Amino acid sequence: MSSIESLLQRMVDEEAIRRVLFDYTFHLDMNHPDELVNLFVDDCEVVYGPNFGAVGREAYAKTLLGIGTYFVCTSHHVSNVVIDFVGQDEARVRSVVLAWHRYTRERPDSTLYGQYHDIMVRVNGQWKFKRRELRTSGAKDFHVKEGVPIGRAG
Amino acid sequence: MSSIESLLQRMVDEEAIRRVLFDYTFHLDMNHPDELVNLFVDDCEVVYGPNFGAVGREAYAKTLLGIGTYFVCTSHHVSNVVIDFVGQDEARVRSVVLAWHRYTRERPDSTLYGQYHDIMVRVNGQWKFKRRELRTSGAKDFHVKEGVPIGRAG
Amino acid sequence: MSSIESLLQRMVDEEAIRRVLFDYTFHLDMNHPDELVNLFVDDCEVVYGPNFGAVGREAYAKTLLGIGTYFVCTSHHVSNVVIDFVGQDEARVRSVVLAWHRYTRERPDSTLYGQYHDIMVRVNGQWKFKRRELRTSGAKDFHVKEGVPIGRAG
Repeated sequence: MSSIESLLQRMVDEEAIRRVLFDYTFHLDMNHPDELVNLFVDDCEVVYGPNFGAVGREAYAKTLLGIGTYFVCTSHHVSNVVIDFVGQDEARVRSVVLAWHRYTRERPDSTLYGQYHDIMVRVNGQWKFKRRELRTSGAKDFHVKEGVPIGRAG
Repeated sequence: MSSIESLLQRMVDEEAIRRVLFDYTFHLDMNHPDELVNLFVDDCEVVYGPNFGAVGREAYAKTLLGIGTYFVCTSHHVSNVVIDFVGQDEARVRSVVLAWHRYTRERPDSTLYGQYHDIMVRVNGQWKFKRRELRTSGAKDFHVKEGVPIGRAG
Repeated sequence: MSSIESLLQRMVDEEAIRRVLFDYTFHLDMNHPDELVNLFVDDCEVVYGPNFGAVGREAYAKTLLGIGTYFVCTSHHVSNVVIDFVGQDEARVRSVVLAWHRYTRERPDSTLYGQYHDIMVRVNGQWKFKRRELRTSGAKDFHVKEGVPIGRAG
């Protein structure tokens, strides 16, 4: 493959990877658990906090069951996407998220400010999440009390 | 056109389309109604809510007249841009927006969390809005009471 | 250089420039002053407000000294990135930022809504900040009282 073709393929892959990140937020905000699960590989790992996560697609699917009734609505804003390839079919991806939530229960809306650290892999021509870790910069009125810290230097 | 040229053209178009989205927010926040109107085709349709929108560029221009005095300032943050081409000169574009507003009148600042669903077309080599619909995920203290719902599954 | 090669190089440069913007926010939120300084050229200029900024990398480094203790955490969300090249090795870049801050001192969290206006240059193959100016659309509870206005039309 020529240098031009390989550069072009890398950029197509970058856009495809960004799209998976954005489809994730779309289906999360739309409460589409089946579409969400399809963005992950079978043996995925999802880490939301020190004591909150899932290993494997089935376990991940279970964490999504309550979304429809727990939230009235959510809005996930992902930006600052940085992609590092590890070979042709794997990438480490860093992004930031501002996640806003309105609850069914009587409690204030919350905002979470965090980072996603993802490992993406290409499976059958489709980029998917192999590992997704949410780290928490800070939050206001968020329902999850303990997040993975971003590791800010002291 | 070779496969390389057509892939490259698609990526150039993607960047050009994102730029129109970002120029829109810039001119909105800068209160530049003429520059805003120029981003739309003559027979455009703009939908902000079930009872709030405009058909045609002239009607759209009228909806922008009050912006300068109604708001002290606004800030529109657009991300999660996903582009699907429908032929070479048309694309469906989905994005999310966090829109913050400070009012001239004595009332609290507001934040709107929403999705833009756009139809973009290429006219004379320039990508423009053919149809722009704002759907509302949620809002706090926003002056428009009824938005188009995002259609979140129950 | 053929048209294809030059178009492709421009897109690689666009992605590289976006990455510098996103690495900046990452290292800012992580409190990595050395990595931040490395994103700027020696004779850089940084403007945060009419009376707040730095000329030269050393002076800029000094403005970063207090970050670790002044903030408990911050989260910078950059989007709406628009890039205009001025020759092959220089670009004008506009973006918007939502910056959230939690303070060590007992005071409310703050949010700044603003625009970055940057001049980026390529030095030894690496894109760096030559000039970075933060303009303020609006803010809530922010510790800096006077920002550079965005110049919104009246």
